[in-house]
Amino acid sequence: MKIVVVIMFCAILSSVSPDSDNMQDTCPTAPGEQSIFFINGYPCKNPTEINAQDFKSTKLRVAGDTDNYLQSNVTLLTASEFPGLNTLGLSVSRMDLERDGSVPFHSHPRSSEMLFVVSGVIFAGFVDTKNKIFQTVLRKGDVFVFPKGLLHFCLSSGFEGATALSFYNSQNPGVVNIGGVFGVDQEHIKNMMRSLITGSGSSSGITDGDVL
Amino acid sequence: MKIVVVIMFCAILSSVSPDSDNMQDTCPTAPGEQSIFFINGYPCKNPTEINAQDFKSTKLRVAGDTDNYLQSNVTLLTASEFPGLNTLGLSVSRMDLERDGSVPFHSHPRSSEMLFVVSGVIFAGFVDTKNKIFQTVLRKGDVFVFPKGLLHFCLSSGFEGATALSFYNSQNPGVVNIGGVFGVDQEHIKNMMRSLITGSGSSSGITDGDVL
Amino acid sequence: MKIVVVIMFCAILSSVSPDSDNMQDTCPTAPGEQSIFFINGYPCKNPTEINAQDFKSTKLRVAGDTDNYLQSNVTLLTASEFPGLNTLGLSVSRMDLERDGSVPFHSHPRSSEMLFVVSGVIFAGFVDTKNKIFQTVLRKGDVFVFPKGLLHFCLSSGFEGATALSFYNSQNPGVVNIGGVFGVDQEHIKNMMRSLITGSGSSSGITDGDVL
Amino acid sequence: MKIVVVIMFCAILSSVSPDSDNMQDTCPTAPGEQSIFFINGYPCKNPTEINAQDFKSTKLRVAGDTDNYLQSNVTLLTASEFPGLNTLGLSVSRMDLERDGSVPFHSHPRSSEMLFVVSGVIFAGFVDTKNKIFQTVLRKGDVFVFPKGLLHFCLSSGFEGATALSFYNSQNPGVVNIGGVFGVDQEHIKNMMRSLITGSGSSSGITDGDVL
Amino acid sequence: MKIVVVIMFCAILSSVSPDSDNMQDTCPTAPGEQSIFFINGYPCKNPTEINAQDFKSTKLRVAGDTDNYLQSNVTLLTASEFPGLNTLGLSVSRMDLERDGSVPFHSHPRSSEMLFVVSGVIFAGFVDTKNKIFQTVLRKGDVFVFPKGLLHFCLSSGFEGATALSFYNSQNPGVVNIGGVFGVDQEHIKNMMRSLITGSGSSSGITDGDVL
Amino acid sequence: MKIVVVIMFCAILSSVSPDSDNMQDTCPTAPGEQSIFFINGYPCKNPTEINAQDFKSTKLRVAGDTDNYLQSNVTLLTASEFPGLNTLGLSVSRMDLERDGSVPFHSHPRSSEMLFVVSGVIFAGFVDTKNKIFQTVLRKGDVFVFPKGLLHFCLSSGFEGATALSFYNSQNPGVVNIGGVFGVDQEHIKNMMRSLITGSGSSSGITDGDVL
Repeated sequence: MKIVVVIMFCAILSSVSPDSDNMQDTCPTAPGEQSIFFINGYPCKNPTEINAQDFKSTKLRVAGDTDNYLQSNVTLLTASEFPGLNTLGLSVSRMDLERDGSVPFHSHPRSSEMLFVVSGVIFAGFVDTKNKIFQTVLRKGDVFVFPKGLLHFCLSSGFEGATALSFYNSQNPGVVNIGGVFGVDQEHIKNMMRSLITGSGSSSGITDGDVL
Repeated sequence: MKIVVVIMFCAILSSVSPDSDNMQDTCPTAPGEQSIFFINGYPCKNPTEINAQDFKSTKLRVAGDTDNYLQSNVTLLTASEFPGLNTLGLSVSRMDLERDGSVPFHSHPRSSEMLFVVSGVIFAGFVDTKNKIFQTVLRKGDVFVFPKGLLHFCLSSGFEGATALSFYNSQNPGVVNIGGVFGVDQEHIKNMMRSLITGSGSSSGITDGDVL
Repeated sequence: MKIVVVIMFCAILSSVSPDSDNMQDTCPTAPGEQSIFFINGYPCKNPTEINAQDFKSTKLRVAGDTDNYLQSNVTLLTASEFPGLNTLGLSVSRMDLERDGSVPFHSHPRSSEMLFVVSGVIFAGFVDTKNKIFQTVLRKGDVFVFPKGLLHFCLSSGFEGATALSFYNSQNPGVVNIGGVFGVDQEHIKNMMRSLITGSGSSSGITDGDVL
Repeated sequence: MKIVVVIMFCAILSSVSPDSDNMQDTCPTAPGEQSIFFINGYPCKNPTEINAQDFKSTKLRVAGDTDNYLQSNVTLLTASEFPGLNTLGLSVSRMDLERDGSVPFHSHPRSSEMLFVVSGVIFAGFVDTKNKIFQTVLRKGDVFVFPKGLLHFCLSSGFEGATALSFYNSQNPGVVNIGGVFGVDQEHIKNMMRSLITGSGSSSGITDGDVL
Repeated sequence: MKIVVVIMFCAILSSVSPDSDNMQDTCPTAPGEQSIFFINGYPCKNPTEINAQDFKSTKLRVAGDTDNYLQSNVTLLTASEFPGLNTLGLSVSRMDLERDGSVPFHSHPRSSEMLFVVSGVIFAGFVDTKNKIFQTVLRKGDVFVFPKGLLHFCLSSGFEGATALSFYNSQNPGVVNIGGVFGVDQEHIKNMMRSLITGSGSSSGITDGDVL
Repeated sequence: MKIVVVIMFCAILSSVSPDSDNMQDTCPTAPGEQSIFFINGYPCKNPTEINAQDFKSTKLRVAGDTDNYLQSNVTLLTASEFPGLNTLGLSVSRMDLERDGSVPFHSHPRSSEMLFVVSGVIFAGFVDTKNKIFQTVLRKGDVFVFPKGLLHFCLSSGFEGATALSFYNSQNPGVVNIGGVFGVDQEHIKNMMRSLITGSGSSSGITDGDVL
C-alpha cells in the first residue's frame, strides 16, 4: 500500500500539453482556500498583489527522498504549487534516481514532456500507439521528448544516481500510473523495464522501433 | 502473440480530443498512397472531387468478429478510414461484446470519449489521475463519458452480449494499450476488472470514488 | 407560435466544435443556481463531491414526443443537462422521427456533428459555403458527418420512423434555426426539403454536388 | 438565378473565428496553381521571396458594384486573395450599401465579426441561439460585433448610402447564406428585415432582446 | 515622464491573437467592480441583462488628443472597455496621427493586427525575428497586417494627418512598448524611424527585406 | 555589425507558446531540403523511418562560445534543429553566461518560457504590458517563468559565470531582439540592466512592481 503511494509520487514525472490561451499578461493562482467556487484551472490573485516571487520557485533546489522501493523521487510543480504558472501553459518537475532507481511506465493525459539530464546516465523510452518502443541512453546535458499521452519510463543506468528536469506544456499535466491501477507486482515492472535494456523485452507485445 | 494483436484491435475503443481548427468547410482525406510527403493529419482531396460519400460510412453496420480471447471487437473509423473526418475533429467506433466480453484498460492520448449503449448492459469505468475510480452500469440508451487520456474499460455485464458506439473529439484519438505494453497476463486483467464489479478490487491501488 | 417553439426544440439536433482545453481531469457542472457569478462555460462541482453519476446520463433512453407539426423530436444534452461534459468538449443528442418526420435546416455555431442511425432510414444532407449540397440516404448503422457551422437537415425516408444519435465536439453546440428566424412557412420548408430528394430542388440556389 | 448569385456575393460580409496557431512569423499563401497537393489552409511562399507587398492589399480602396437587386456589395479578402493573411487568423471585407441597400441574414461558420462604419448610417443586428435579436443603429465611427456562427444582417438606414469595414478572426470565415439555400423570395427577406426596424417583426419567431 | 505616459497610450495600437473558444453565444463583461474574484478574462453579465448596446461602441467616433510629443493618439477598446468582446477573441483601436505624428515600435504579445487606413497616408512596417523589415506606404482604403508578437510602427507620411482603424484577434492584445522600457530618447526613435523611409536605416541592425 | 549578430544569437533565449494540436503520435521534421513545398511548421519524416534518435538531442551538452561583447551565448533547439519536436509544441535552449555576461531585453512572439538555473547566480526579470517590472535573483536549482510575448532579460550576478536551461511551449518560439532593431548602443543596454539591480533604474519608464 505504501509502495503504491510512493509510485504515485514518483510517477509525477512527465508530459504536459498546451492549455487554453491566457487573456492577460499573467494570472498567478490565488492563494488560500477556494472552498466555494471551482473553475477550470485556478482563479487569479488580486492583480495589485502580484510580485516577482509568484514567478519563481526554489522547491526544486534539493533532491527528493529516494528511500523507497523504486529508489526514485519526482517533485512536480504545477500551477497549484507554483502560482505564476496559472494560465501560462507550463509546468516543471525534478526527478532524482539512485543507482538502481526507476520511474516506471506512466503517461500524462494533458501534456508532452521534455526531459533534460542534469547529472548521471538515464535510460529512457516511450511506446507509441502502435506498440513500437523508442528508447535510448541519455547522458549529462542531453534532452529527450515524450509525446503527449504516451507511456514512458526512466531508469538510472550509470554507476551513480541521476537527476533530471522535465518540462511540460500544460500547467497541470496529470499522471496516469499503470502500476497504481493494476496493483501489478512492482518487481515485475522493474524486471520488464530492465529487460528492455538487455534486449530480452521481446516477450512483451512491444516491437523494437529503434536501433541504438 | 495473436492475443496481443486482438487486444490492440479491441483497445481501439476510446477517447479522443479536439484537433486544430479547420480553415475551410471540408478537407476529406486524399485517396491513394501519399508516399512522398507527410504532414500532421492528411492532405485533402482535390476540392472538385469531393462528394457526399466522403462524409458517410457504412463500415459500422455489422458487428466485428468477437471470436477471440477477450470475446470483444472494436472497429474504429478515423480520418484514415473515413475521409470526411479529416480536419473536422471527430471520429467514431463500434464495440461488440459477447456475454463475457471485455475491452480492458486503455487510454486515448488525443481525445475524450462519449459512449452510447445500443444494446445490452455494460459495466464501464475510468480512473482519474488521483487513482480514484468512477464506474457504473449502463443500459440501452445510456451515455457515459471518459475524460481525455485517462484509463478506462468496458465489460458486458448482462445475460446477452452488448453493442455500443463511441465518439471522440479528435480525428485520430490513438490508443494506449496497457496489456500490449506489459505483456501482462490477460487472465489477470480480466480478473482484475471483474473484481471491480464485485467490490473486491481494493487490493489494487484504486480508491473507490463512487457509490453505485 | 407553438410551432416555432417545437421547431426550436427539434432543431437542437446538430453540430458542435472543439472547446478550450481542460486543465484538470474533470470539472462537472456545479449544481444549483449560479445566480451571482457567470463565466464562459460553467463552474465545477466541489471536487470531493464528484461521482460516477456525473459522467452518465439516462435521459436518452426513451423517445421524445413527436406529436407536433414536424413529427420529430430532438433531445440535446449539453454540459447544462449532463454535468460531466463540462470542459470535456463533447455533447450528444437523440433524434426521433415519425414516418414523415423531419428536422429542417439549421446549423451549429460551435461544433461539427457526427450522426449515427440507430433505426430506420434517414435522408440527410448539408450545404457548404459555395451553396453546393451533399446529401445521401443513411440506413441502420451508418454514420454521417456535418461540418461546423454549415446548414444541414434530416428526413425520415423509410416506411417507418427513425431514430439517430448525434455527437458534437463542443459542450454546448448551439442551434441556429432558420425557420424560427424567418417565420418562414413550415410547409414551404418541408416541401423544399422533400424536393431535394426527388431532384426537383433546382429551383433553389443550390447546386447538386453529389451523384448518389 | 442571377439574383441568387448576387446575394451570395453580398453575403460574403461577415464573421470569422480563430484558426490554428502559426509556427513561424509569416507564411504568405504560395502563388499560382496548387493543383496537385491540397492542405488545410494554404502552402506558404518560398521564404526567400516574401516581401512587404504580401502583407498589404489595395483591393478595398474602391466601392464594389451595387447595381443589383439588393443594392449592396461585399468584397471579402481571405488568405486566398490576400496572401499575407495565411496562418495569421485574420481576414477583412468592405461592404457598400446604396440608400436602400441591404445584406440579408447570413452567418460565418468559422469566425466572429467586428463591423466599423466608415460612412452613412447602418441598422445591424444578430439573432442568438435562443432566437433573441440584438439590433441597433450605427453611425460613422461606431463598431458592432457579431458572434461566431450566428445569423446577422445590415441595412442602410440613412438618407444616403453607407460603407463599412468588417474584420474576422479567421483567415477564411466562410458564408452561410440563407437566401441562397432556400430560394426564398428576396422581397420577403427585405420586408422581413425592414419590419424589424419598425417593430412589426413580431410575426416572426424572434423575441426582441433589446430596447433601443 | 509625461512623455512616457503618452507613449504608452500611443503604443496601445496593435496586434492581438486568438483567445480560447467561447462556450456560449455571448458573454459580455460583467459591469462594476470585480474586487474579490479574478479569472482569466472577465466574468459575464447576468444573461438576462444582455442587450444590443453591449455589442456596440461609439467610443471611436472622435479623434483622440494628439497634442503630445509624438503628435499621435491611439484609443484601444478591449473587453474591458467594450463588454461584448468578452470571449469573442476580437478587439479594435483607432489611431490618429498629425502631419508629423508617429506611433513608435511596439509589439502585441497576444495578437496579430489588421490596419485599415481611413484617411491620409501612412508609412508602416514590421520587423520579423530574423531582423528583416517589411515596410510600405499605405493610402486611404488600404489594409496591412502585422504578425503576432513582432515589432511594428506607423508614421504619417502625407501632407495632412492620418487616421486608421486596427483590429486584433484577441480580446486583450496587450502592448509591449520599447520606448517605455528603455527610457530611450524619443528623438532617437523618431529619427530612426524616419531614416527607414529615406533608406538611411542601414546603420541599425535591420536588413531591408523589401523593394518598394 | 558583428556585435549585432552576436546579440541575435544571444537573444535566442526565451519564451514560446502552445502550437496547434498534433493529430498523430509523432511527426519528426523531414530531413534534407524542402525546397519546393512550404507549410506552417514542417512536413514529417516517412513514418517507417522514425527512430529514437529523432527524439533526442546532444547539442546542449557543451557550453556555447561566450567570447563576444555580451559574454554570453544561447543555443536554441527548435523543430528545425531537433526533429522530434515537430508538432509537439515544445522547444529548449541552453544559456551560458560569463561572470559579467548578459542576455539583454528580448521577447518571444509565440511562447512563454521556463528558465532553470543549472549553475551560478542569475538576475532575471520581465516587464509586463503596464511597464511594471518583475525581477529577482535565481540560484542553482531555481526556476522562473517569463510570460508569452513580454520583454525579459538575464544577467550573471555571481562571482562566477552561470548556465541555465530554458523551455518553451512552442516548437519555434521566435526571438524579437530590441537591440538589433534599434541599433541601440549596447553599453547603454548593459548599463540600463545593471541599474535595475542597484535600484537606480527609475530614470526609465519602468515602475518597480516588486520588493525583493
